[in-house]
Amino acid sequence: MKPFMDKDFLLENDMAKHLYHDYAAKMPIVDYHCHLSPKEIYEDIKFDNITQVWLGADHYKWRQMRSNGVEEKYVTGDSTDREKFQKWAETLEMAIGNPLYHWSHLELQRYFGYEGYLSGETAETVWNICNEKLAQPEMTARGLIKNSGVTVLCTTDDPADTLEWHEKLAQDTTFDVKVLPAWRPDKLLNIEKPDYLEYLAKLSQAAGMELHCINCLQNIVTDRIEYFHQRGCVVSDHGLDFVMYSPADKKEAGAILKKRLAGEEVTKEEALKFKTYMLLFMAEKYHEKGWVMQMHFGVRRDLNKKIFAALGPDAGIDSINDNVPVGQMAQFLNALAEKDKLPKTVLYSLNPNDNAAIGTIMGAFQDSSCAGKIQHGSAWWFNDNKKGMTDQMISLANLGLLGNFIGMLTDSRSFLSYTRHEYFRRILCNLVGTWVENGEYPADEKILQKIIEGISYNNTMRYFGF
Amino acid sequence: MKPFMDKDFLLENDMAKHLYHDYAAKMPIVDYHCHLSPKEIYEDIKFDNITQVWLGADHYKWRQMRSNGVEEKYVTGDSTDREKFQKWAETLEMAIGNPLYHWSHLELQRYFGYEGYLSGETAETVWNICNEKLAQPEMTARGLIKNSGVTVLCTTDDPADTLEWHEKLAQDTTFDVKVLPAWRPDKLLNIEKPDYLEYLAKLSQAAGMELHCINCLQNIVTDRIEYFHQRGCVVSDHGLDFVMYSPADKKEAGAILKKRLAGEEVTKEEALKFKTYMLLFMAEKYHEKGWVMQMHFGVRRDLNKKIFAALGPDAGIDSINDNVPVGQMAQFLNALAEKDKLPKTVLYSLNPNDNAAIGTIMGAFQDSSCAGKIQHGSAWWFNDNKKGMTDQMISLANLGLLGNFIGMLTDSRSFLSYTRHEYFRRILCNLVGTWVENGEYPADEKILQKIIEGISYNNTMRYFGF
Amino acid sequence: MKPFMDKDFLLENDMAKHLYHDYAAKMPIVDYHCHLSPKEIYEDIKFDNITQVWLGADHYKWRQMRSNGVEEKYVTGDSTDREKFQKWAETLEMAIGNPLYHWSHLELQRYFGYEGYLSGETAETVWNICNEKLAQPEMTARGLIKNSGVTVLCTTDDPADTLEWHEKLAQDTTFDVKVLPAWRPDKLLNIEKPDYLEYLAKLSQAAGMELHCINCLQNIVTDRIEYFHQRGCVVSDHGLDFVMYSPADKKEAGAILKKRLAGEEVTKEEALKFKTYMLLFMAEKYHEKGWVMQMHFGVRRDLNKKIFAALGPDAGIDSINDNVPVGQMAQFLNALAEKDKLPKTVLYSLNPNDNAAIGTIMGAFQDSSCAGKIQHGSAWWFNDNKKGMTDQMISLANLGLLGNFIGMLTDSRSFLSYTRHEYFRRILCNLVGTWVENGEYPADEKILQKIIEGISYNNTMRYFGF
Repeated sequence: MKPFMDKDFLLENDMAKHLYHDYAAKMPIVDYHCHLSPKEIYEDIKFDNITQVWLGADHYKWRQMRSNGVEEKYVTGDSTDREKFQKWAETLEMAIGNPLYHWSHLELQRYFGYEGYLSGETAETVWNICNEKLAQPEMTARGLIKNSGVTVLCTTDDPADTLEWHEKLAQDTTFDVKVLPAWRPDKLLNIEKPDYLEYLAKLSQAAGMELHCINCLQNIVTDRIEYFHQRGCVVSDHGLDFVMYSPADKKEAGAILKKRLAGEEVTKEEALKFKTYMLLFMAEKYHEKGWVMQMHFGVRRDLNKKIFAALGPDAGIDSINDNVPVGQMAQFLNALAEKDKLPKTVLYSLNPNDNAAIGTIMGAFQDSSCAGKIQHGSAWWFNDNKKGMTDQMISLANLGLLGNFIGMLTDSRSFLSYTRHEYFRRILCNLVGTWVENGEYPADEKILQKIIEGISYNNTMRYFGF
Repeated sequence: MKPFMDKDFLLENDMAKHLYHDYAAKMPIVDYHCHLSPKEIYEDIKFDNITQVWLGADHYKWRQMRSNGVEEKYVTGDSTDREKFQKWAETLEMAIGNPLYHWSHLELQRYFGYEGYLSGETAETVWNICNEKLAQPEMTARGLIKNSGVTVLCTTDDPADTLEWHEKLAQDTTFDVKVLPAWRPDKLLNIEKPDYLEYLAKLSQAAGMELHCINCLQNIVTDRIEYFHQRGCVVSDHGLDFVMYSPADKKEAGAILKKRLAGEEVTKEEALKFKTYMLLFMAEKYHEKGWVMQMHFGVRRDLNKKIFAALGPDAGIDSINDNVPVGQMAQFLNALAEKDKLPKTVLYSLNPNDNAAIGTIMGAFQDSSCAGKIQHGSAWWFNDNKKGMTDQMISLANLGLLGNFIGMLTDSRSFLSYTRHEYFRRILCNLVGTWVENGEYPADEKILQKIIEGISYNNTMRYFGF
Repeated sequence: MKPFMDKDFLLENDMAKHLYHDYAAKMPIVDYHCHLSPKEIYEDIKFDNITQVWLGADHYKWRQMRSNGVEEKYVTGDSTDREKFQKWAETLEMAIGNPLYHWSHLELQRYFGYEGYLSGETAETVWNICNEKLAQPEMTARGLIKNSGVTVLCTTDDPADTLEWHEKLAQDTTFDVKVLPAWRPDKLLNIEKPDYLEYLAKLSQAAGMELHCINCLQNIVTDRIEYFHQRGCVVSDHGLDFVMYSPADKKEAGAILKKRLAGEEVTKEEALKFKTYMLLFMAEKYHEKGWVMQMHFGVRRDLNKKIFAALGPDAGIDSINDNVPVGQMAQFLNALAEKDKLPKTVLYSLNPNDNAAIGTIMGAFQDSSCAGKIQHGSAWWFNDNKKGMTDQMISLANLGLLGNFIGMLTDSRSFLSYTRHEYFRRILCNLVGTWVENGEYPADEKILQKIIEGISYNNTMRYFGF
């Protein structure tokens, strides 16, 4: 029996161990998509206790606590941090086979030096160990990032954002990790939302430009993209129900915007047309700038209206969306490719049933402007586990070139999530190592090193142009 | 090479063997969903030969015999029982990798003491062994149930049923297995069926109450639920194409019922509205009573109209339904959760593609009224095999808390199907044992015992409150 | 570590090795569905170099070269064959885990005696070895087919085809491999296509019969099916978006055809009705003749319009189609079964999510006219890899009788693709061997031989009646 999560965790044969320890583990981390706060990084915040780090905003954990019958006051309510930690520890015991079990223990090992396991019985010990460690001077936002080996990270930012914290970080010579903004214009596209006009007002103000027509909006978008670009942004991100393709010309899109600006509601079809038009417009800008376009889709959000009313979004009440019309995504990509305006694109569906469709659609739009121009994004959110990551990589390997994969991102709100890169690399090395051990790929040291270091780090640096 | 289906069948490492033999195998069985006849249990029926037990009503086997080119007279026709057995034995040879191969041999081992394998050549030997054994006094309905270690079983009963056999069984002190009714109101909901009015008449008569409006129907349902409740029922079951959500108020639902009572046909949309309304009404009653609501969906029934005309339903001519709109299921659950009326719920889709959607939707509706309140039901029917069960458990483990899983049910019409619990437990122990052997979960004896005994038996007893 | 792709490639245990080397490897090949040119076989063509064989028409490889950022001139353009080969070799390095890696090296081993691996560095060596070998007299179309152990192969032919090359081959006593035509009437059904009338004119001319109504078309189809039948055809093939069921009677189908013959466009619904009507008509003819009906569906073709404009179809720009309405397929099969006119049928979806639905639908239509009458076709195109083939066989084994499976076909345009049968057989033997090693199926030599030789060759010969 292998010891619990020892140095060879998830590495099932000699080649897997070699690839991980000698290549993957030695590479730095580039975290090209996360939800960290640039303000918190700039201010180099500290944490009073492990509950603040672990349970303050982690809807993955909230969801599992509710699954264990834990009362809401211990989840998001006003019980003490120690009580919440106890309930989480008891929940974790039941989470056998869950990635949270592995993530939590990787974090306990790497950041807190705790090699045992967390359960209801050991909770008091772990609580004390973690909090003592958190009091040490290196356990700050910056210390955690730096000591995790991160060289570049991209946050997630609204077009109306001033990026002041990014500017301050860029000027701060004491911190040599690149913290770059990423362009996330979901609010700009969601014309059907009740607060859309307020958002437009905010955006208009941020740009210092008036907004009363589609031309104005396009000018503002162009201006803000340039603003982001000058502050180091090289990547956009879109959170979509699905990648739609309801083509409309400028006149039609403009009329829909006018209607909305006049305070009227738009129909579902009008919203899709407006979004298609603006997404295509932005994608062309990305292409011009050499940016990467990330598309996250296949989510159905905020299912439990009672919890939503109490806690708002990101409360652990989301699900996978079925029946994503990926055919429209193909049409969307084609509309750009036909004009030679398709930017580098990363496609992520939350529904693992879409893996094969994504893998085949992307193959139809590759071109010589970049190796691996269209990417199948790493297993995400509910799929960010051993099976989900393995399935995504096998699908990608079967349908495309795994060797060009840009690999892992954290997509996290926590400063401790960098161990997910370790988790991913172990799974990658085990997969590749097993193929080599089975005689399915040659044991060519040079090529294997290139592939493993590429997927761990080098491909990403090249792809985004950091 | 491991011997064919020996004591370590499906157990691939030492921890798996330990967990199975020392914990899982020792637990009793609670079979919370089956299709056994309470009358046959009460009358403690016997069988003349193995064909009667195995081929009398088993559409799983019929389907495979047809797949082997066997003529219908040997499947459901008037050939002799010995001839039918021969054809089944020859079919089984070709069923390599099929769960029927394993189920059949587990039954031959456990109930008939036959350790060899069944094929065209051994059919005569097996026929004689089985029939000799069936002549022994303990091989009755009750003997088989009792000797399988069953403590509780729930049958499947129509709201119009008198439950007379359950009453008789309850009064019979010579049989200490609890045989409880389960509420299955499919006929009550299927307003579009040609014989719906006849059914309502029967239901009205059973309740001794008149039925000419939606109020009447609701009163009758309330009355019958109470009637079932007093006879030990704690669980409902619904067989649905999909869990629909076409909301309608009482007035609208009442008008649809009126129309149907007047002999008119209802539209597809009207049927969905009526069903949504009545399902929500019943679900609130279940919540009130503390019952569990089971929802079985994702089936397309009776595809082959020629066989259906000859044999009726359950003839081996059903399939998995694709494109189940699980988003509506989320809305249905939310409608109950918003009113604090969501009962304990078990969700089963026949389509394995729905696993991830179910696993994520259920997480959004968990609450503190019960650990594991919303359950992902065990792999069912066409998925009730090694891969299907493993996939369901891995999906559940990744997305929720496997430790709270209520585990296996037979869903069977046969008194020999209890070995399916053994099959399930072996697969469970192998999955968990492998994780522990690989260092993915700690080898903590106490917690592992709790998890394995929980999923085998204890969780179910707690969840249903038997 | 196992050596790279040695004699036990993909065979992970002793039973797997035994089954493969002693049974599977010794069987001949029947390739019941391919895209080889009968003209090229008759003319016994030769190849100047390996690029001509490998990259001349192989859109699988083109797609991966584009994924590696290779310029189109090296893919389908006018660069030299040696340059193209270099780009392919460099691409292949990155294709770790891709079936092309295995296919390419199986071909290098079996046809060219090269046991190393192809990479950018070894490209020159491999280029020379292959081209030297290609110059040898046995390396012709016929030599490659014959030396691969093929006894029967079926090409893919339009109803308007004269089959002159098949006739010549049939008369040529120097070549004892049966080369039979297969009926592929896609163009005859695609009433919505702009060039449909031209096609009908060609068909009418081929039959020497006038075509101005549905009766004419049916007479022509009947005549051409007879023509194909007399030239040895026993199998049809259909390439469909999905198997539709939009029933129409002869009058309605006739009116739709009339409309089209008058030069008008037909609606989407009309096209579906016409296709349903004609497909049912043809299926009845297949049943009459004892032919096999193959249905390939779940494809979305020609996604990248820019490449399509330059290169036409089969350019590596296709994808899996999601949301195939397989329920309509069940209705289509039922319409034939109800009239006792359902032919032997092989169902292939390009979407692996459809496996379970296919496996359950086909079980509803099996009958005693043939063992394994309805077949789940072998993993196809994007699924033709280790995982895809394993998944298809496990699904089939769980839901039907693997023992009756008709196994592999190449579906290829290349004379070197027969190694895919070897690839398939290795995967099959590993799957079955592992079951036996694990005690999940008895080590009964006689039955195992029957199953392995059956799936490799004998089942196919029996099923098609060659």
